[in-house]
Amino acid sequence: MTDARIAGLRARMREHALDALLVTSLADIRYLTGFSGSNALVVLTTGDAFFVSDSRYALQSAREVKKFRRLIGSRGLLEDAAAAKMLRGCRVAGFESDALTYAQYRSLRRLFPRVRFRPTSGMVAGLAIVKDRQEVACIEEAAAISDHVFHEILKSIRPGVTELEIAAEISWLNRRRGAESDAFDVIVASGPRGALPHARPTVRKMRKGEFILLDFGSTMRGYSSDLTRTVALGAVPRRMREAYRAVLEANETATASARGGINASVLDAVARECIRRRGFGRYFTHSLGHGLGLRVHERPRVSALSRDVLQSGSVITIEPGVYIPGSGGVRIEDDVLLGDGGCRVLTRSPRELIVL
Amino acid sequence: MTDARIAGLRARMREHALDALLVTSLADIRYLTGFSGSNALVVLTTGDAFFVSDSRYALQSAREVKKFRRLIGSRGLLEDAAAAKMLRGCRVAGFESDALTYAQYRSLRRLFPRVRFRPTSGMVAGLAIVKDRQEVACIEEAAAISDHVFHEILKSIRPGVTELEIAAEISWLNRRRGAESDAFDVIVASGPRGALPHARPTVRKMRKGEFILLDFGSTMRGYSSDLTRTVALGAVPRRMREAYRAVLEANETATASARGGINASVLDAVARECIRRRGFGRYFTHSLGHGLGLRVHERPRVSALSRDVLQSGSVITIEPGVYIPGSGGVRIEDDVLLGDGGCRVLTRSPRELIVL
Repeated sequence: MTDARIAGLRARMREHALDALLVTSLADIRYLTGFSGSNALVVLTTGDAFFVSDSRYALQSAREVKKFRRLIGSRGLLEDAAAAKMLRGCRVAGFESDALTYAQYRSLRRLFPRVRFRPTSGMVAGLAIVKDRQEVACIEEAAAISDHVFHEILKSIRPGVTELEIAAEISWLNRRRGAESDAFDVIVASGPRGALPHARPTVRKMRKGEFILLDFGSTMRGYSSDLTRTVALGAVPRRMREAYRAVLEANETATASARGGINASVLDAVARECIRRRGFGRYFTHSLGHGLGLRVHERPRVSALSRDVLQSGSVITIEPGVYIPGSGGVRIEDDVLLGDGGCRVLTRSPRELIVL
Repeated sequence: MTDARIAGLRARMREHALDALLVTSLADIRYLTGFSGSNALVVLTTGDAFFVSDSRYALQSAREVKKFRRLIGSRGLLEDAAAAKMLRGCRVAGFESDALTYAQYRSLRRLFPRVRFRPTSGMVAGLAIVKDRQEVACIEEAAAISDHVFHEILKSIRPGVTELEIAAEISWLNRRRGAESDAFDVIVASGPRGALPHARPTVRKMRKGEFILLDFGSTMRGYSSDLTRTVALGAVPRRMREAYRAVLEANETATASARGGINASVLDAVARECIRRRGFGRYFTHSLGHGLGLRVHERPRVSALSRDVLQSGSVITIEPGVYIPGSGGVRIEDDVLLGDGGCRVLTRSPRELIVL
């Protein structure tokens, strides 16, 4: 697996006429090496594959990182790489322009005065768009945990409970069920706060007659799930029920259309049209979804402006939403694995409106 | 408060002969503006103060950000700033070289072709070294939450419980007690795993006769506490008890010496000497502490190599530790506010060995 990824990356290096590539993003390093710590550098040359970390990770990296020459340094990652002459003989080296600060770039220039550095973008991320079986298995496990957590959290949602209490319990259930961590900060938005797509949970108490929007994810071996459900606390106003119906239809229609080979912008349009037809078009204010893997948001882009053609083997989210200022919000989000003739939905929580 | 910070930053801009400064780190932006969201840019010129964010944060930024001209854009932060001509008339603009990617730097050059850009470092962080009363109050509240959490988690620590279960419960208690979030990923390390200073909690079950090391923090209005305690599960081997005594003495001696005006390296040496004298010198493998505020690790540096002179009004951690490979680890960490003649300890959990 690691071998194939290294070979794939070397092929991309050749296309870009690079003798070496410095990988500095931790998600990309995890993809290439399996390393799960918080400080590392990978240097790939045509003949060598180096991994650099610090003494905190001596034991852990020995266990996780195979197929790389490992260096545990103490001066700083770039300084350690320079001291070990990892770019000896390299004339042109690429670096990830989105994952290197300007200060690090200056260090590179100072430490390797003879090397010409060339900014690159998405060299590793491009390889990771299509998931292998093992990766899909991780996302499936993460999705199964999220489904369990959703099922269990329903028992705690009642009038008078705060958003923060529910968020804390979701995090706790996540870990109890075996997740490494939350995939991102849990979103719990009740009543009118549901109209903020990125609401942070507050001490606001839930009330009868409101929608409660829950958006959370679980991380397993680095891979994330991302699940949103919206439930009703008692009877909600008719307009919000209609919004729910529109979002549900958009979710189901997009899921039925999702497959390898479709344009991402077309899939977005399919969902958007459902919501528009039911009169909520101007309240669907974000993209339909995003790629999902070692990063919670990754390629492909699944939006109206995306030029990506979706590929069989990608995992994406499908998450239409409607946000009505002053009233509330609805979002229904699933994770799907794209195949040639359709898709497989990895999140299995019920989509029909649950009234508590 | 915001006014004083803006004035302080303008004074530093003058020292560096800058007509403008772009602030891109979210912690720095929060310090200057009060904004707590996840996407923003501040542009400070000699006469103007701009804040840029996106539509997700229209409502929130209106509430949080005063004294700045607010722009809610849609093209991307730098593009929005360029379209609004925020650097009109500026010849030399600074940017944070540690908080701007190389790709963003290239965008800057493209979007503002007439401006000369100069990398800066620590312009805002330098202002934040000394805390005002309101900032200290936030850290105190965070520390009080951590103390409560420590007190409560003791009831759950017993043989057979896993590190992950305890970590999940610490996160949950943190939020139940009113923290915005964990200040960082909770560390729970039992038995020999305590020898890894940055251990991530695992499914390992705790056993009688082991030390359990707990390191966690609480965030309140952006400010963090950072607390470590090591407790014994039943009777631990004599050598580990001796290690505990050495670390405790180092903690107490350093706390008694901490005050504004002392060299950080001297304070580190004071603690290190206690541990050395008791024969554990080579097992104290990290710095004595670090500055604490909107960032969990910030200036001043509190290490043997630091050249910082500690200032009255800084909050720092004091966290000596001993890590014996194969046996386990001990760390006792407090947060202290430095004053002219001494320091005030903000974390009040008992430091004497607790045997469960």
